[in-house]
Parts: sequence; C-alpha cells; structure tokens
Amino acid sequence: MGFPILKNDRLIRALLRQPTDTTPVWIMRQAGRYLPEYREVRKQAGSFLDLCKNRELACEVTLQPLRRFALDGAILFSDILTIPDAMGLGLYFVEGEGPRFERPLRSEADIRRLGVPDPSDSLRYVTDAISLIRRELDGKVPLIGFSGSPWTLSTYMVEGGSSKEYRHIKGMMYRNPAALHQLLQKLAQSVTAYLNAQIEAGAQAVMIFDTWGGVLTPQTYRSFSLDYMSRIVAGLKREHDGQTIPVTLFTKGGAQWLEAMADSGCNALGLDWTIDIDEARGRVGDRVALQGNLDPCVLYADPDAIRTMAQDIITRFGNHPGHIFNLGHGIHQTVDPDHLGVLVDAVHEAGYEIRQ
Amino acid sequence: MGFPILKNDRLIRALLRQPTDTTPVWIMRQAGRYLPEYREVRKQAGSFLDLCKNRELACEVTLQPLRRFALDGAILFSDILTIPDAMGLGLYFVEGEGPRFERPLRSEADIRRLGVPDPSDSLRYVTDAISLIRRELDGKVPLIGFSGSPWTLSTYMVEGGSSKEYRHIKGMMYRNPAALHQLLQKLAQSVTAYLNAQIEAGAQAVMIFDTWGGVLTPQTYRSFSLDYMSRIVAGLKREHDGQTIPVTLFTKGGAQWLEAMADSGCNALGLDWTIDIDEARGRVGDRVALQGNLDPCVLYADPDAIRTMAQDIITRFGNHPGHIFNLGHGIHQTVDPDHLGVLVDAVHEAGYEIRQ
Repeated sequence: MGFPILKNDRLIRALLRQPTDTTPVWIMRQAGRYLPEYREVRKQAGSFLDLCKNRELACEVTLQPLRRFALDGAILFSDILTIPDAMGLGLYFVEGEGPRFERPLRSEADIRRLGVPDPSDSLRYVTDAISLIRRELDGKVPLIGFSGSPWTLSTYMVEGGSSKEYRHIKGMMYRNPAALHQLLQKLAQSVTAYLNAQIEAGAQAVMIFDTWGGVLTPQTYRSFSLDYMSRIVAGLKREHDGQTIPVTLFTKGGAQWLEAMADSGCNALGLDWTIDIDEARGRVGDRVALQGNLDPCVLYADPDAIRTMAQDIITRFGNHPGHIFNLGHGIHQTVDPDHLGVLVDAVHEAGYEIRQ
Repeated sequence: MGFPILKNDRLIRALLRQPTDTTPVWIMRQAGRYLPEYREVRKQAGSFLDLCKNRELACEVTLQPLRRFALDGAILFSDILTIPDAMGLGLYFVEGEGPRFERPLRSEADIRRLGVPDPSDSLRYVTDAISLIRRELDGKVPLIGFSGSPWTLSTYMVEGGSSKEYRHIKGMMYRNPAALHQLLQKLAQSVTAYLNAQIEAGAQAVMIFDTWGGVLTPQTYRSFSLDYMSRIVAGLKREHDGQTIPVTLFTKGGAQWLEAMADSGCNALGLDWTIDIDEARGRVGDRVALQGNLDPCVLYADPDAIRTMAQDIITRFGNHPGHIFNLGHGIHQTVDPDHLGVLVDAVHEAGYEIRQ
C-alpha cells in the first residue's frame, strides 16, 4: 500500500492482548466539538454531513486531537449513519437534536426495496478520507475505522431519528420479526462490505458501535443485535497488508451480556461505566481485550480527581495485557480540553507504573 | 382508620412473598394517556400538575384502569417530582418534553437554602387524594403510594429537567461530592416523611422509583443512590393499622446491582426488561419479591404474541411465591388499551396454571 510504517503500535498490540510498555488510550469522539479548532473547521465546512463528506476537512479534524494530546490512536471522523444515507434514506441533522431521516422505513415494502450499497461508489468519500488520513498520519499512531451495528442503524432508520421509547422498531420486532430480520440481514451485508472497504483503504483496526443494543431484552439482544454483529465479524478481512486487523464490539448498556459478546469472534469489547473493569475482566477472562471505561462526566472534575479515577481503572484492570483506556461513551462537548490532556497523561503514567 | 376491608390481597401477599392463587399484576402508569377516559379528565383539569393537585380528579383517574382491567393494585396518580415542587423549585411541564424547574439548583448555596417540606402542609394534596382513593376503592385492591428516589429527584433538580448527559449533576458529584451528599440527605429525609405520611393517609404499599440510578457507576450508585434509598427504607413505618406495608425499590437500568439492592431492607425489587427474571431470582434468592419485567413495547404486538411473552416470564419465575407481574417501565401512551386487557388476563391465566 505504500503507507508509512507504524511507529506507535501500543493500541494494536493491546487490542490483540500483546504486552505493551504502558496502557494505550484514545477517546471516543476525540475529534469533536469540545475542541475550538474543530468548531472552526466545522464552521468552514457548513453542516456536519458536509464535513464528513469533505475528505480534506475530515482528515484535518481527525488529526487535530493528536496535535494536542499523546493519544495512541486516531479514529476516522465520520458518522455512524453513513450506510443508511448511502441506502437513500436522506440523512440530515437538526442542530441540538441529532440525526433524522427524510424517508424512514415503516413497512415491509420499504425494507424490500432497500439495496446493499457498494462502498466503492456511494461511500467512496469515506474510503478516500481513510487513505488520506493514513498518509497524513505518517505512521504516528494507527487509524481506527468504524460502523454502526445493524441493530443501531435500524433503530434510526425505522424511528426516523433518535428515540426514547423505540416504539416503531420494537413494534416491528414484536409484530413482524421476519421483516426486521430482513432489514438486519441487509445491514449486516452492508456493514461487512463497508468495513472491509475501510480496511482495504487503510483502517488498521475497526470498531462496531452498538449504541442502542442496551435497550433490548437478553433474548432479543442476542437475536436482533449480537447475532448480526457476529456475522459481520466472521466476514471481515482480519489480515491486511501483512498486519492483523483487530475488531472491537461496543454495546452501550450491554455490560450484562459480555460473555456472549466475547464469543462473537471479536478481539476486544468496549465497556461503558456501569460495570467495574475488574468484574468485566473476571467474566470474560483472557478471551478478549477490554476498552474503557471511565464515565465521560469525570472530565468535569478537578485534575486531581481525574488522575485518581483514571488510576483506579488501571489498578482494577491490573498488570495484564489487553487494556485500552477510553471513556465509556463519547467525550461531551462542554469538557475543557485541558482536562483531557490531564487524563491522557495520567493514563500513561499509571500504565507505566503498574507494569513496574 | 375506618377504611373498607381489603378483598383482593394478592399484591400485598406477593410483595411479602406469601403464596397467592395466581400472579398479581399492576402496570406502571396504568392511569395515563393511553386511556381515552384519562385524556378526557386531563382536558377538564388543565395542566398535568393541576390534575395531580385536584383530589377528586386524581382519584377519578386512579380508579379508571380498574374499571377496565382485572388489575390487582391501584397506584396513586401523582408525579415523582412533588417533593422538589414543595421545596419551592417551581415545577412545570412542557408538553412533549417532560418536567422542568424554574429554579434549578446549581450551587452549594442553593442547596443550603433548601428546607425539608412538611408533608402535612405543602404536600397535603397528595395525602388527601390517598385517603379519598382508599375510600372510593372500597377495599377492591390495595393502593400503592410512591416517591422518586433522592438521586433521581436530584438529577431533575440540578439539571433543571430531563437530561441525556447529566453533566450538571455528575459534574457536582465528581467536583463537589459533599454538596451533593447534603442535597441527597435532605431529600432522603423528605422522602421518608412523605412516604410515612402517605402510609398514614392510607397507602398500603410504597414504591421508590429510581429512574436514573442506572446512569451511575457501580460505586457512585451505591454511595449516591442506593445508600439513601436504604436510609429511607430504614425510616419507614412498616406496620400501620394492623397491616404490614411492603416497600419496593426500582432502579431502571439497575439489573447489575440487584444483590446490593436486595440488602437494602426492602421487600421487593422492580426489574426492567434487560434481565431474565429467572436469572434475577437466582441472584437474589428468597430475600425479596420481584416485580416485572415485560418490555412495554410488547404491548404493540398481536394478542397471541403478548400472551406468549407474558407466559414466558411467569414460566421463568416458576412456581414460587413473590412475583408481581408488571412492565419494566411505564406503559407507553400509544398502546391500544385492549392489548393491556389481553395481558392482564394472560397473566392471571398463566399464574393459575403454573400453580397447578
């Protein structure tokens, strides 16, 4: 591929549960609104989607947090809803209210009509951005690609946007499960092709965000969310350009189902903050690496408290390979960027110490 | 007290883990917007708060669902935010957006100024409604009183309304925990006095709704939510008018912490739908009764599917005392009332069968 050689491989090694000199750290939504330089670029770009679709600007905001903080990974700047957008649902954003679709799915006929998008066509802007970011990163840290999970994508596609009660999608699930399975099947195919295209374009690790898996029951989680993520994992290129590509699954609110998630064939699980990481590690053992799990609101605390709480998670995980430090959800937009700097340095320091 | 004798005591017996002829069932928010007769009364009353504060109308809507369905309990029609309202924060409701406070708490000084309301004064409308409902119920089924938990009340009081990120309250928790503890201490005192006043006025069981406990970490849940609920439980009148008053705790999203909740001294735990009730029972054993745990969206399914899913929960719980059937959260306003009728009858039928 001709990409520069990777200098800091802590993140990849930890995802593969190999020893590292300290605990690697990256932050969900690290390229985002809490950074004034992001808000500047966002203003230039126009809408959030315009920014996602502009290769140069998406590259620029992806790199911004790396200039400020000693992060061990970059994550593609994009949205989880690019696939439904490519399927023709008409994604748009209402300021302060999140994503919406012009044409939500409400019937079996709507679902039958959907095609599986060819990532080299309607999602080309994503893979182009990935290749550009890889070149610009110059091997500094690895680049993470990502997608929403089929279940999470389907919630937005059927509800038409964010939801509190999930009545349309759950109504379909309980009334006409076959229709929903048809949709999830198409989404699983689409996500597999999309993540493989990201890997071919240069993504060195991939993550599947199942933001809304936690609103399901144990049984419906397995059959309507986890099962489709497992199919995706089984269909991904796990070796590319001579390197192993680690796969991370993250179900927010899914701490109860970690054992089942660890059986999916993935390399790592994301954790929110509702479970202690030592308990999580006890439950999944050495099967997968763990990524997490600081409450994002800890970044509103004073620097000393931030350091103490970062150290607590590292101490709980203990001196084992396979921990990637992260927040349990995306960083909030009102956080002081300096507090993130305190956190990143505290993680590296505590990570070195625990290995002595 | 001179209240009529209780004819159907299934709910009370099940809460105390005594044998019953079938599984009792009541539904969170059973008096609510899914009922056309409720919407009629609500129109007469004016605002939602006007309805809560009108003793006759609150009594009328409390009784409405009992005229349609063979429910085994009535629950006081009220709001969880009556205490902060009595504390002078100025509760109001924005149609479709939930509760708001005119004067949210943002500083330690705000918290210091708060008094503990005397329930016989500013919350008299609640206890008056309870006594009226008890008389009107005529012993048909028991009446449940309730309050929000200190943590849940504090989230609304500090955020000023509903929240997605809880940044003000969690900011306070991580930056100035002593201030938050002071607030929670006042709320625990207020809730204890309020629930005891409800018991004295005629509530035959009480429930504490910890709607937002599930957004905490394991440690902060224990110290900022569960600990205060336990103090309340310890301060409640558990015997009144010759009857035992059972206490139920419900933390939505709290399925991971059931063991700790069962140690609080309560009689029963509410379950949302993210855990199978057989697993929950395995974890808490015979220490407490369990209330739940159907996904409210199951009521969008066809009658046959509703019956099957009700039966599944009853089968999972098995032939033991101590199960109260309920949804895992309030009934949604767009549910067809006839579907609730199907559910209630299915529960009683399956409950009889499993005891044969």
